[in-house]
Amino acid sequence: MSSTAVAPPACLRRPLVVPRRFMFGPGPSNVPPRILEAGANPILGHMHPEIFEIMSDIKSGIQYLFQTKNSMTLALTGTGHTAMECAIFNAVEAGESVLTAVNGIWGERAADMAERIGAFRTLLAGLYCISDEIIKKKKKKEPVLFFLTHGESSTGVLHPLDGIGDLCHKYNCLFLVDSVASMGGAPLCMDKQGIDILYTGSQKVLNAPPGTAPISFSDRACQKIFNRKTKPVSFFLDLSWLANYWGCDGKPSRVYHHTGPISAFYSLRESLCILAEEGLENSWERHRKVAEYFHDGLENMGLKLFVTEKSARLPTVTTIVAPPGYDWKEITAYIMKTYNLEISGGLGPSVGLVLRVGLMGCNSSKANVDMVLTALKNALKHCHKSRV
Amino acid sequence: MSSTAVAPPACLRRPLVVPRRFMFGPGPSNVPPRILEAGANPILGHMHPEIFEIMSDIKSGIQYLFQTKNSMTLALTGTGHTAMECAIFNAVEAGESVLTAVNGIWGERAADMAERIGAFRTLLAGLYCISDEIIKKKKKKEPVLFFLTHGESSTGVLHPLDGIGDLCHKYNCLFLVDSVASMGGAPLCMDKQGIDILYTGSQKVLNAPPGTAPISFSDRACQKIFNRKTKPVSFFLDLSWLANYWGCDGKPSRVYHHTGPISAFYSLRESLCILAEEGLENSWERHRKVAEYFHDGLENMGLKLFVTEKSARLPTVTTIVAPPGYDWKEITAYIMKTYNLEISGGLGPSVGLVLRVGLMGCNSSKANVDMVLTALKNALKHCHKSRV
Repeated sequence: MSSTAVAPPACLRRPLVVPRRFMFGPGPSNVPPRILEAGANPILGHMHPEIFEIMSDIKSGIQYLFQTKNSMTLALTGTGHTAMECAIFNAVEAGESVLTAVNGIWGERAADMAERIGAFRTLLAGLYCISDEIIKKKKKKEPVLFFLTHGESSTGVLHPLDGIGDLCHKYNCLFLVDSVASMGGAPLCMDKQGIDILYTGSQKVLNAPPGTAPISFSDRACQKIFNRKTKPVSFFLDLSWLANYWGCDGKPSRVYHHTGPISAFYSLRESLCILAEEGLENSWERHRKVAEYFHDGLENMGLKLFVTEKSARLPTVTTIVAPPGYDWKEITAYIMKTYNLEISGGLGPSVGLVLRVGLMGCNSSKANVDMVLTALKNALKHCHKSRV
Repeated sequence: MSSTAVAPPACLRRPLVVPRRFMFGPGPSNVPPRILEAGANPILGHMHPEIFEIMSDIKSGIQYLFQTKNSMTLALTGTGHTAMECAIFNAVEAGESVLTAVNGIWGERAADMAERIGAFRTLLAGLYCISDEIIKKKKKKEPVLFFLTHGESSTGVLHPLDGIGDLCHKYNCLFLVDSVASMGGAPLCMDKQGIDILYTGSQKVLNAPPGTAPISFSDRACQKIFNRKTKPVSFFLDLSWLANYWGCDGKPSRVYHHTGPISAFYSLRESLCILAEEGLENSWERHRKVAEYFHDGLENMGLKLFVTEKSARLPTVTTIVAPPGYDWKEITAYIMKTYNLEISGGLGPSVGLVLRVGLMGCNSSKANVDMVLTALKNALKHCHKSRV
């Protein structure tokens, strides 16, 4: 073992070169210098008192962002998918049933996760979930958890939430909401709307780098989770361990669970500071106004919005019907090449049908809308058009 | 829902203040400015060609670091615990048996993870695992996976690896090695030593922020994993999805799995560049020499090393027998307060018995040893000593 058999790779002799780019796809969005700088602070230990204070600040920030008083509020090490698994792993036991609204890709993934841990899954298909249908499905299987995506970034739908929490609780079912694409950019009040588990990601409206996922659990959710008969399949995502690491369990001392992503905590805290400075309602209002300005501009160009009902349009991610006669890939490639600007095609059920434009957090401004509209106009002029 | 009920928290009005600190505990270690700066580059998309190239560079860097030609080599979004779960979730199915060497805290956690997914676990206790014992235990249960920690940061033991791979393969068992605390600081050659699954963390010898975990799978491991009868419990850690996202499955196009931690990829790549520049063998040699210099210095001060056998001492994390008559907490607190320098107490089986000092990656230097020795000397002078 005196000599190594694999040589140092030549590619690592090249310095890292990262271009600046307008990140106007469905995420990640641009990270402002203030947040990047926060993330470049020196490392501290994951059990140092300064880090516990930063985690406490993050917890307060998430409580504000989510509009919740839940003590069981923290940020996971991972992405939105980590949070989705954390919710399902903790709230569901093998043999139980989960009802999932599939109004895009996320519902399918949640159902897949439930099935992997031995839960039964029932799907509710369609862009919207009508209350009657939920009741019918519920009666069939008595689910312990109902999953719904608030902002479906694959279809551009903002799903209404009012009343669903009450309906769930009537049937002794927990209400789990994915707000990765909507949180901070569209009105949502966790406590008022009776949401039991809510999560988001750091890389959308919050404008932090991907790698942390805010999540919160209601007392009702904790009641079920902490009275499980079996351990959750994941140690890493076991809420009893996470609750202690995040100081949410009221115990006087914290036990080492895992090494938190220190740099990502710095940037997440900074992004929550920026949100608190602007104010949540101002942020909702800005996203709403900018989205309307964008949607008007698109319609004035003769483009069609994929979501016809105005109130159901997600203000953070806009889906545009792929312009007939064009190859959508040529449009996104032209805009990337010409403007160094990302917009994207569809995802899951919307592949080939739409163009998707995300204007989230600091990216949500009329100036950026004007830039996207100009880019689209020129793309339609320069890209190849077949006769329709 | 017109007004928000939870007000912006006052704590987020304070700017982020992060002190500089000597991170000489068992990890995370200090991150040099070059790596912090790399991490502060602008965000790109998780499916952009530049990111695929950076991921490819990271893959090559890990192959060099691990000394492997395995195509199935990538970095996980998460920490060492994520990698531990990824290995077990993919390689083991419910009803199968896992043999775990428990020579500190990590073996216990691996056994817990195996049990959570419905596998039988058998433990091998003791600081070292003698081959005969492994054979005896194997015959009893026929495990499909044997877990061993190379560098046990809780006890300070570097476990020998030679011959164990062959022994495992004779019994049709995969050999899984945790090298979180040792990788890059102590000789290890994955392919030569017949290791089937190997992982480490970004925050130890690599000196990158915590949040990514390099991992590699041998063809033998892939053979078992891709012929499973059931899906792994986790979608997020399902190797078939990860392999595609990392371009390890030979398929022409990549499907969206999760949003990779872009900033953490930048810093991980930079840390692998630094390692390639120094050379792996030079890094091993530097850690060995610095550790010997440190151990001599400790013994000259009259302190005792917890691991008596020289060849079994981990060069990255040193365990010192807690000085008799002193409260170890007073010593670590004094050193933190006086020198802004972290050394730590024990973990798991070594709690109360040892002080732990980690000198990893850029922290492994004689100058830092001198600083720690001075700090320890002054702590022993100033801290309260009872009669022994």
